[in-house]
Amino acid sequence: MITRIDHLGIAVRSLDATIPYYEQALGLKCEHREEVLSQKVRTAFFTVGEVHLELLEPTSPDSPVAKFIEKNGEGVHHVAFASSDIRAQLGQAAAAGCKLIHEQPFEGAAGKLVAFLHPKSTHGVLTEFCAPQAN
Amino acid sequence: MITRIDHLGIAVRSLDATIPYYEQALGLKCEHREEVLSQKVRTAFFTVGEVHLELLEPTSPDSPVAKFIEKNGEGVHHVAFASSDIRAQLGQAAAAGCKLIHEQPFEGAAGKLVAFLHPKSTHGVLTEFCAPQAN
Repeated sequence: MITRIDHLGIAVRSLDATIPYYEQALGLKCEHREEVLSQKVRTAFFTVGEVHLELLEPTSPDSPVAKFIEKNGEGVHHVAFASSDIRAQLGQAAAAGCKLIHEQPFEGAAGKLVAFLHPKSTHGVLTEFCAPQAN
Repeated sequence: MITRIDHLGIAVRSLDATIPYYEQALGLKCEHREEVLSQKVRTAFFTVGEVHLELLEPTSPDSPVAKFIEKNGEGVHHVAFASSDIRAQLGQAAAAGCKLIHEQPFEGAAGKLVAFLHPKSTHGVLTEFCAPQAN
């Protein structure tokens, strides 16, 4: 079952150029920065209520986020829903006709299990399911 | 002050074609449908935790949402932040160098005061501030 939106992934060209907007215009606080080598991105995290904002800056032209920016410009890259049972959620999505990018969840940042649905089967929104590792 | 994400606006070609994805794959419930004549859209609402999802289907080729879909395809159209003081929030954004689409908030759906920032000054995310009318 989906319990809340865990985070929005937002593709940006430069963390250093973007963080001041979130801090000064929105009054949010950058809580954490981290490089994710497997995704070739540098990330910066903010919290708004129960949702995190995750800025994603590509570290290489062949990063998936670099390709997204090349095609679409900066903007919302994915929406991540927290699920109480990620495997059941993937099964439910598949049964509803969704194309899964990952048939099985894998360990993402902070030990969470994550998996993505293909945006062609979700009406354009790259959709992530995530759950604590204990799930 | 921003207190939470109020809603995500998601541009879709057809509500009828998209609602089954949100209901069947994600297990959410369509709570309300409404036509917003001023924006030339039909909308459908879902709730996930403290955030609403607002599907937006254009009712005319000159709807802003139709133009968005023509350029970008279906996907996340805007992110709306709930603010405890929308006028102060607009002033803070302007002081931080943001371009405001609306200098003053206006009454949107459900009697909320709303105003938008231009995505060119928010690193690609069309950003809405909203607040209860009493604000």
